[in-house]
Amino acid sequence: MAYTIEQIAAALGADALGAVDIEVDSVAEPADAGPAQLALAMKPEYAEGLSQGNARAAMLWQGADWQALGLEAAIISPRPRFALSGLSAMMDPGQGWSDGVHPSAVVDDTAELGEGVVIGPLAVIGKGAKLGAGTVVGPQCFVGSDVTIGAQGFLREGVRIGARVCIGDRFIAQPGAVVGSDGFSYVTPEESGAEKVRQTLGDQGEIKAQKHARIHSLGAVSIGDDVEVGANSTIDRGTVRDTVIGSGTKIDNLVHIGHNCVIGTDCLLCGQVGMAGSVKVGNNVIMAGQTGVADNIFVGDNVITGGATKLMSNVPKGRVMLGYPAIQMDAQMEVYKGLRRLKRLFKDVADLKKTVSNHSQSE
Amino acid sequence: MAYTIEQIAAALGADALGAVDIEVDSVAEPADAGPAQLALAMKPEYAEGLSQGNARAAMLWQGADWQALGLEAAIISPRPRFALSGLSAMMDPGQGWSDGVHPSAVVDDTAELGEGVVIGPLAVIGKGAKLGAGTVVGPQCFVGSDVTIGAQGFLREGVRIGARVCIGDRFIAQPGAVVGSDGFSYVTPEESGAEKVRQTLGDQGEIKAQKHARIHSLGAVSIGDDVEVGANSTIDRGTVRDTVIGSGTKIDNLVHIGHNCVIGTDCLLCGQVGMAGSVKVGNNVIMAGQTGVADNIFVGDNVITGGATKLMSNVPKGRVMLGYPAIQMDAQMEVYKGLRRLKRLFKDVADLKKTVSNHSQSE
Amino acid sequence: MAYTIEQIAAALGADALGAVDIEVDSVAEPADAGPAQLALAMKPEYAEGLSQGNARAAMLWQGADWQALGLEAAIISPRPRFALSGLSAMMDPGQGWSDGVHPSAVVDDTAELGEGVVIGPLAVIGKGAKLGAGTVVGPQCFVGSDVTIGAQGFLREGVRIGARVCIGDRFIAQPGAVVGSDGFSYVTPEESGAEKVRQTLGDQGEIKAQKHARIHSLGAVSIGDDVEVGANSTIDRGTVRDTVIGSGTKIDNLVHIGHNCVIGTDCLLCGQVGMAGSVKVGNNVIMAGQTGVADNIFVGDNVITGGATKLMSNVPKGRVMLGYPAIQMDAQMEVYKGLRRLKRLFKDVADLKKTVSNHSQSE
Repeated sequence: MAYTIEQIAAALGADALGAVDIEVDSVAEPADAGPAQLALAMKPEYAEGLSQGNARAAMLWQGADWQALGLEAAIISPRPRFALSGLSAMMDPGQGWSDGVHPSAVVDDTAELGEGVVIGPLAVIGKGAKLGAGTVVGPQCFVGSDVTIGAQGFLREGVRIGARVCIGDRFIAQPGAVVGSDGFSYVTPEESGAEKVRQTLGDQGEIKAQKHARIHSLGAVSIGDDVEVGANSTIDRGTVRDTVIGSGTKIDNLVHIGHNCVIGTDCLLCGQVGMAGSVKVGNNVIMAGQTGVADNIFVGDNVITGGATKLMSNVPKGRVMLGYPAIQMDAQMEVYKGLRRLKRLFKDVADLKKTVSNHSQSE
Repeated sequence: MAYTIEQIAAALGADALGAVDIEVDSVAEPADAGPAQLALAMKPEYAEGLSQGNARAAMLWQGADWQALGLEAAIISPRPRFALSGLSAMMDPGQGWSDGVHPSAVVDDTAELGEGVVIGPLAVIGKGAKLGAGTVVGPQCFVGSDVTIGAQGFLREGVRIGARVCIGDRFIAQPGAVVGSDGFSYVTPEESGAEKVRQTLGDQGEIKAQKHARIHSLGAVSIGDDVEVGANSTIDRGTVRDTVIGSGTKIDNLVHIGHNCVIGTDCLLCGQVGMAGSVKVGNNVIMAGQTGVADNIFVGDNVITGGATKLMSNVPKGRVMLGYPAIQMDAQMEVYKGLRRLKRLFKDVADLKKTVSNHSQSE
Repeated sequence: MAYTIEQIAAALGADALGAVDIEVDSVAEPADAGPAQLALAMKPEYAEGLSQGNARAAMLWQGADWQALGLEAAIISPRPRFALSGLSAMMDPGQGWSDGVHPSAVVDDTAELGEGVVIGPLAVIGKGAKLGAGTVVGPQCFVGSDVTIGAQGFLREGVRIGARVCIGDRFIAQPGAVVGSDGFSYVTPEESGAEKVRQTLGDQGEIKAQKHARIHSLGAVSIGDDVEVGANSTIDRGTVRDTVIGSGTKIDNLVHIGHNCVIGTDCLLCGQVGMAGSVKVGNNVIMAGQTGVADNIFVGDNVITGGATKLMSNVPKGRVMLGYPAIQMDAQMEVYKGLRRLKRLFKDVADLKKTVSNHSQSE
């Protein structure tokens, strides 16, 4: 679908300059852009690319001289990356799926489908499931018994939602995402070595070989509005009550959320983050990729972690954490600096020992 | 389904106290419990919750005064967490799937289904596959050619079992689990930089760009009895012989087990554990979340690892390990303490150098 | 299928010795081998196994005395592991799937299937998808709208390829692999704490709770020839242009490739490697298991990383890296040695302080 520069700028709340009636039907990087594409050159370093491509119009950085760049029209926004959000939604060609309920889908008679619900080929909708108006269930998805999904959801191919999971509006799930797997919860007849290690920090006591008895997950998963779950990520059900994901929280690919976790609102959990059981996470928390969180700890509001940070104990709100084990980022940067100078430190101490020893002997 | 307090206690081998004919049909956290629910208050800190909820009966910690807590009945067990295992099994509402073979499933004529086998909608059962009595194959599962699965197995939705995999009784697999993917095994025509680095620990020698030739996986995967595999975990087949998972071993979500690994009995591998190829793990080993294990190493019986531990070399039996690279947990805790005092150490050494230098000059 | 020793040796370019007309139909480890199997004893330590098994013929290490080992025939290759590549391809029994398009598959009328294409049961092929000659799409796979896959591809069960992804010849994908999930890309209306931390390395400034606006992924994924993607791995589409995987690159299980990444040719990315968005990786790069790569960095040709290495900044070509944060492997090994001696260093400095202090006072 094509839009004029004027229409796009109006939709984004940005300024349209020049020949604002030029039409574009998609976006492109500056060097790749054709005459019917809007070039995205939102930083000065993209200027050169514009001269290599054939764009007539571009989205530019604040203060750019669009005419000097050889363009006929431009869109300028005070925060171009934020404008890209709206622009990308306008230009998204989507997955190309058909409307309606595909005849090959297996939909239980007791399921309730809201207006305009789409069910893709070979999907399964279980007993008593409820799908809100406009929700799209992709090909080969599974929606279990008594699951509720709100309005305007979008489940990509092969998503799996276990029994009794309850999800709000505008839910997005990427291919292969799993919500409602059973928790990983076992117990030995007598106190185990692992339980002892938690107390002693290193001594597992007398070793007994014991079998692991399974604790079944009786809770489900409760997910708020505007949540996204990434490809092949897994969210376990709770043991007694539900595992909880707050509204506005976004979860990347291959993330693991253990049983009983309670995640706040508007968090970002990046790729391969792993959270053991019963973790409590506040609101607006950002965890970079491969962050790990030990079980039963508390992570306060607005905490930010760097890549591969391993949180082993509670984190007060607002902290910026890094490393394994995690400490505050600025202190960790000091430790890393120290490690790079460690060889020199050993040398200095060896020299000092020699000097002091010589000195003592010479007296 | 409802049970009396007396029935539950008898099933768990626990003590029933008070009005033991009260019936409950589910369990709940103390503050959330209604009058027909059994409150789970297995530690003294849950006492307050009981007064907020409406439970008439609860499972309590050893020594609790149930009458003072306002209850009419109680179950008391010497190890309440262990009792929870049996209780949760009694109370599990399950996935709500129908019995029998769903007409939409594609079951090869040569497959052998034991008595009471359940095949969910849109599942595929390959040539010569054998499913033991009572095994449930969930919706959209795939069971490949010549696979054997024992009795009383339970495969959640979308599990995939590759050709010739052999699995014991009471197998549980969570959604999206993969057993029998091909091993990641390649070889270059001449010795590669990576092979040289293994010898030199840092020098890859003269660099040659080489293509990777694939080594096909001819083995399968052998899994004992009472094994559980978590959501979206992957277990690769062996190169010549089978990859092996011992009886009683439990594997959490997003775990990767490489080709040729041999895992012992009654191990616990927590979320996102990753094991490279040809690792040998003993019995009763516990690996916390995100533990990594380098290829071709040996991990002895009863080894325990802390979260995100990276095992880079053999580990004797009974060791408790932590960190990257892993050392014994108590020694690692000392290192972590040292790192927090590293800045101070640099300061001390700088001061000493100054003192000694001044001293020498003043002589 | 059975082959003579002579046929196998000829196919591998290796030497056949002894009774070269002996036929074998599969391979086995030396101790397990029967008389119709080729024992694989490619290192001297396997000699003992041969005497325990019943092999008449074996593939042996260079210089082995096959007659002294009690064999009737032998294959000897200068680089046996490389020969195993060809041998394993000859001996691979495969997945046992049927040819043709299964009637339960849902294939859009506009899809173009090359000669000999196989579509397994319950697979879905979308509008305008193009599958090259000889490509096998396994059971329950999903191939989205306008996807192109070249010739001789092999998709194991449950693989998912999103709309507009373009893949070369001889592509292999393991069960549950996802190509073309949406990128994890969000933006807040105003500058976020995480953006500030990138500049300050630890200070997120004044905290504001903000919602995350989604940036849609308009690009797809472009994959070269001879690429393999492991079980349950995920490759995200690009924001404006495609995410790119170069020819000959092999990706293991549970690997995450973020949006906009450009990976070169002939790389190996081992299990659970994670790459944040917009990473540029050169050719012939090898990343060991659980390696993590921060967003927007550059990794040069022929870089090798050790297990669980975390790359936080650009890496020049040819470097061998280890640790978190990654530094060159040899330097990191020195740091690890230093950490093991850290307790002793603290003791030495404490002793020095005492000596120097006593000395000063005695003057």
